[in-house]
Amino acid sequence: MATPFVEDTRVVAAGAGRWDAQVSDRWDIAFPNGGYVLSVALAAVAAEVGHPHPLAVSAHYLSTCEHGPARVDVTVLKEGRSLSTAAATLWQGDRARMAVLATYADLRASTGPTLVSLEPPSLPPPDQCAFLGDRPAANFSAPPPIASRVDFRPSPATAQALVARGSRAYLEGWIRLADGDRLGAEHLPLLADAAPPAVFAALATGWVPTIELTVHVRGVPAPGWLRARIETRALIEGTLEEDCVLWDADGRVVAMSRQLARVLPAAAP
Amino acid sequence: MATPFVEDTRVVAAGAGRWDAQVSDRWDIAFPNGGYVLSVALAAVAAEVGHPHPLAVSAHYLSTCEHGPARVDVTVLKEGRSLSTAAATLWQGDRARMAVLATYADLRASTGPTLVSLEPPSLPPPDQCAFLGDRPAANFSAPPPIASRVDFRPSPATAQALVARGSRAYLEGWIRLADGDRLGAEHLPLLADAAPPAVFAALATGWVPTIELTVHVRGVPAPGWLRARIETRALIEGTLEEDCVLWDADGRVVAMSRQLARVLPAAAP
Repeated sequence: MATPFVEDTRVVAAGAGRWDAQVSDRWDIAFPNGGYVLSVALAAVAAEVGHPHPLAVSAHYLSTCEHGPARVDVTVLKEGRSLSTAAATLWQGDRARMAVLATYADLRASTGPTLVSLEPPSLPPPDQCAFLGDRPAANFSAPPPIASRVDFRPSPATAQALVARGSRAYLEGWIRLADGDRLGAEHLPLLADAAPPAVFAALATGWVPTIELTVHVRGVPAPGWLRARIETRALIEGTLEEDCVLWDADGRVVAMSRQLARVLPAAAP
Repeated sequence: MATPFVEDTRVVAAGAGRWDAQVSDRWDIAFPNGGYVLSVALAAVAAEVGHPHPLAVSAHYLSTCEHGPARVDVTVLKEGRSLSTAAATLWQGDRARMAVLATYADLRASTGPTLVSLEPPSLPPPDQCAFLGDRPAANFSAPPPIASRVDFRPSPATAQALVARGSRAYLEGWIRLADGDRLGAEHLPLLADAAPPAVFAALATGWVPTIELTVHVRGVPAPGWLRARIETRALIEGTLEEDCVLWDADGRVVAMSRQLARVLPAAAP
């Protein structure tokens, strides 16, 4: 199905290890969402490596993307029996926008012990969770385009915190793509970065541009909504870490992400 | 002072963006420690970029290092006002051992809000914490070489868990370099990966090779011991995440790391 995710992460071969892409305007917050831009680069990586699923992907953001043409250069560094690793750089003109290291695997093939202490948040059903236009009005005058692509339903407590501030930097809620995509491993790097920043529950700030984002994909999600817990535990001199955990409808951890980001001052009212 | 850390991370210019290095045998666990190998690559990055401190470094491990000569190829991707980013690959012969993305900054220059909910563990003084030869006997017949380089002093509860198993995959203790190095930001990527794996408190396993390691350096440490908390919350089909937080002697968070690793079966007794 040619959903917006499929259309907006399409890459076209343009030579050895080179892929043409388009950065869409449909995934903006203030700028193209970092998880979306990462997904564009990963589409090129996925076309080059011999394993089907992103396992560990690390992105360092170099400059803000613009809408329009982009090029992804991919270098495959390893093709192993169980893991493939590639380096990718996303360019617009002569500006490097993002550098990525991505290790791919077959998530269905691994076996070994399981011991999980993370518990998913208890949430009312999605239809009893508020839809806020995805971003609190204090930060944005209108819902950004990404709010039409990603359906994030904060719990009542989180919805309240996003309005009232002053809570700890913690969000929980349901999340999925809004366009009917059956979620796969390839959607999780985006969805781990597509809810509002957790710091919005604590402070009135400006935008929070990502410096570095690493996503570990831990399983192929079962059909249905994901549950998300997003938390910042260390905002230090304007730089924060944010952790996101995603669980599938069967209660299994399917992704864990961490990013480092800068908090920009709130714009004058 | 030519400490082992200084000696064993020395790099020598060998052409544009190319550095010669030596992988020492003094930082082995079963193989050269991943945080040590990362420190060798970062020594080459630090020589090329315009900012003094590692801020966010991501390493994907491609194949196991051997002792002896190595080469680090560095490509500077960004030299900004506040951040520099480089890609580095560590080679031995024609084998790529590790790929790194590293963003450097001046940690003393950032300003903005601070909000930290992470609390350091309460620990008895270091001289009342056991020294275990760094690794439990059930996993290694003798202390590995790295135990002479890194001084990890588990709390009494952690020391007990490392022997008895069956606890949650959680460690806490004091940590520093054993050779008198005054700790700086450059030592933190190593120290975030130099204690035993937290899973050793829960299960009798074999070695735990790292697939991906990202370290966020959050501050330049004050003089003295660091406190470490290391935890695995999701071991799934033999693949685990491990998080480490390091606090300095003033109780400030100075590093947060996360790695993805595979648990190998315990060797037959």
